[in-house]
Amino acid sequence: MIDTQLTAARKGQITPAMAAVAQSEGLDAEIIRQGLARGVIAIPCNPAHACLQPRGVGQGLAVKVNANIGTSPDRCDPAEERQKLQAALEAGADAVMDLSTGGDLVAMRRQIIAACPVPVGTVPIYQAAVEITGQGKGVVDLSADDLFRVIEQQAVEGVDFMTVHCGVNMAALERLRLEGRVTDVVSRGGAFMACWIIKNQAENPLFAQYDRLLDICRRHDVTLSLGDGLRPGCLADATDRAQITELITLGELTQRAWDAGVQVMIEGPGHVPLNQIVTNIQLQKRLCHDAPFYVLGPLVTDVAAGWDHVACAIGGAIAATAGADFLCYVTPTEHLALPGPKDVYEGVITTRIAAHAADVARGRAQSVARDRQMAQARAAMDWETMMSLCLDPKTARAMREGSRPQEDEVCTMCGKFCAVRLMRDYLHPERKKV
Amino acid sequence: MIDTQLTAARKGQITPAMAAVAQSEGLDAEIIRQGLARGVIAIPCNPAHACLQPRGVGQGLAVKVNANIGTSPDRCDPAEERQKLQAALEAGADAVMDLSTGGDLVAMRRQIIAACPVPVGTVPIYQAAVEITGQGKGVVDLSADDLFRVIEQQAVEGVDFMTVHCGVNMAALERLRLEGRVTDVVSRGGAFMACWIIKNQAENPLFAQYDRLLDICRRHDVTLSLGDGLRPGCLADATDRAQITELITLGELTQRAWDAGVQVMIEGPGHVPLNQIVTNIQLQKRLCHDAPFYVLGPLVTDVAAGWDHVACAIGGAIAATAGADFLCYVTPTEHLALPGPKDVYEGVITTRIAAHAADVARGRAQSVARDRQMAQARAAMDWETMMSLCLDPKTARAMREGSRPQEDEVCTMCGKFCAVRLMRDYLHPERKKV
Repeated sequence: MIDTQLTAARKGQITPAMAAVAQSEGLDAEIIRQGLARGVIAIPCNPAHACLQPRGVGQGLAVKVNANIGTSPDRCDPAEERQKLQAALEAGADAVMDLSTGGDLVAMRRQIIAACPVPVGTVPIYQAAVEITGQGKGVVDLSADDLFRVIEQQAVEGVDFMTVHCGVNMAALERLRLEGRVTDVVSRGGAFMACWIIKNQAENPLFAQYDRLLDICRRHDVTLSLGDGLRPGCLADATDRAQITELITLGELTQRAWDAGVQVMIEGPGHVPLNQIVTNIQLQKRLCHDAPFYVLGPLVTDVAAGWDHVACAIGGAIAATAGADFLCYVTPTEHLALPGPKDVYEGVITTRIAAHAADVARGRAQSVARDRQMAQARAAMDWETMMSLCLDPKTARAMREGSRPQEDEVCTMCGKFCAVRLMRDYLHPERKKV
Repeated sequence: MIDTQLTAARKGQITPAMAAVAQSEGLDAEIIRQGLARGVIAIPCNPAHACLQPRGVGQGLAVKVNANIGTSPDRCDPAEERQKLQAALEAGADAVMDLSTGGDLVAMRRQIIAACPVPVGTVPIYQAAVEITGQGKGVVDLSADDLFRVIEQQAVEGVDFMTVHCGVNMAALERLRLEGRVTDVVSRGGAFMACWIIKNQAENPLFAQYDRLLDICRRHDVTLSLGDGLRPGCLADATDRAQITELITLGELTQRAWDAGVQVMIEGPGHVPLNQIVTNIQLQKRLCHDAPFYVLGPLVTDVAAGWDHVACAIGGAIAATAGADFLCYVTPTEHLALPGPKDVYEGVITTRIAAHAADVARGRAQSVARDRQMAQARAAMDWETMMSLCLDPKTARAMREGSRPQEDEVCTMCGKFCAVRLMRDYLHPERKKV
């Protein structure tokens, strides 16, 4: 059997993936190996994903950004999905999840894996749901074999990480029922499992047969992304007994995965009031023994529809500063419609701002240095260097070109009243250009 | 002499402005009066601003949002400025500052005051600078009389609050020189005063003759917005000795203003790493005895050009949660160009998301209730109510209409796989529509 990055790390081996991550992070490969061995770093890296340039997620690494793409039953255009993938990559996404639920799912996923140099994630139950509803049955009619067949298929194809809602079990669902939530379950996969449990009066197969899942992941080095199926769908439901019960289960499943040599990340909320975000991060880190934390937002308000990428950036920046390792973007169309390529681009850039702000706040040397270089370029009115240091040079250049100043040194905001130039001329006249 | 809102409050009077603010905040007018009397609430409300509907800023009130509009020497179109004012108001700005430095400044300002139902702020030294440079001289050639003449003129016209850089004095400038900053001074008004001091080797008239300023503000009930002329222009300069020296001076000037019956707000940074924001807020509140705090951002990274409204929303949400009272927006074109109407709209909405997230985090009952109502509407798939509760219904409606689902209950993100509907059907079948 192959080694996973985790089992290799435990044997003291530095794999090519570890070396590549070490180089891109500017860290010693031995640091990466130690983090992997402890489980606090994951490198989602399925050997069957041929064109992958591995990225690491976790303690001591730069905060990473994921972009969700994929079709829906109502909007299904393979060409648009290719554009969305390109938009995500152009904007600098560190990972892409194919969440397709419309059209030919297998063809879509193979196309994405073949074209995507960053890790690719999926939620296998979506394919299982599409297949069974295509037979005129319901999601609640799925068998355990249906589910594991799809998981194995996707592992063979090269999916690097999979979201599985193993923590939505009968005990957690009972906590949810007694809690009396406003928005019950808003995770699609979580809702599938919850309805399955209610209808079948039986335990979630992904929980009951977790070892079967671990076996597949171990053989293909698929990183588990333990989904938070009961994540709060509104601020009023945040940090409640149902959410924390599921998180405790995910912590136990994390240790079982590590024992089986399988890499793990934990997914997190969701909709969370700003003042509860740090608590959520500390709780996850403690309950899951510092496993990498992959947060979906968190969104700091429920009323920002049309601008949820901004609500997500606010929450994501705070979460990542407090220790979250991986931010799942949200696009402007969240809660309203499936995103298009422009929405994907905006979502990635916005989330990268949050990730970078957190890297700076956490004192990551390369990130701090980038901001300082930008400040020095501003002081020198060196526009070319400013543009090259922007997180989104394309947009920045277009804005400047769309409103040209009369003098190249300044911009149209202040024109001849530019504070930076005034200060240079009076405080540092020796720097004046001749 | 007229009473200011502050002197009236001290006499135990509840003015019409206090009553209006109390009603819009859902608070007892006596609470507003007490806050005004202590200086922890300001109601910028010049009696000459005839169409003003007063807003309050400060302790216990909803966080407010300001939009900067106005021309520059390089981009000066009165019609566009009218559009920018309308965009700011449509997006829900609580205040507007006219920062014009191009064209006919007096006409522009009068037009804005006449059309603007929210408080109008200015930076009078801009007009003084435009006038003196129009005479072929430099900003450094301004006299104290030039400055105070402009301030008096704007007070008579009805400006509700004025930013004055009184804290940029010789002592603070010496701290800046010894500090060795990366971006020295990035505030326009701050740079004007700093250069004036350097060139004239004399003290800032706004500091040296502060009582003259107080006299004008006292007679017209102009609220002082004590500008942070030495605010950091990059993360590397944040919270340094120059900034804090100026802030200590602003604290002393705050008490002198209160003693003179003049309302005061304090302006704050600027560019600040995320992990220093709470410190900045606590420091301002303590050094300025809980005077209302008006923050410009803070921007949590220097490299977000093209998306600085997002960097601003992240910082603003954290600052307001920690106690900042008033958020000055930043638009997408910050650091690149003068904003247009669309940029103004985006800047206001983005900053309102930050303000609202902070109101929720601070436990403001009306704000928490709004998010809960939105969550209830989502659970009920009641789209009309969802739209009406959005901070930006126009944009949200357009996104939904641009991507219509096959079934009206859901959206094109999940279509028939809608988690909310699945949960209703299995967990709450009694709620199913017939």
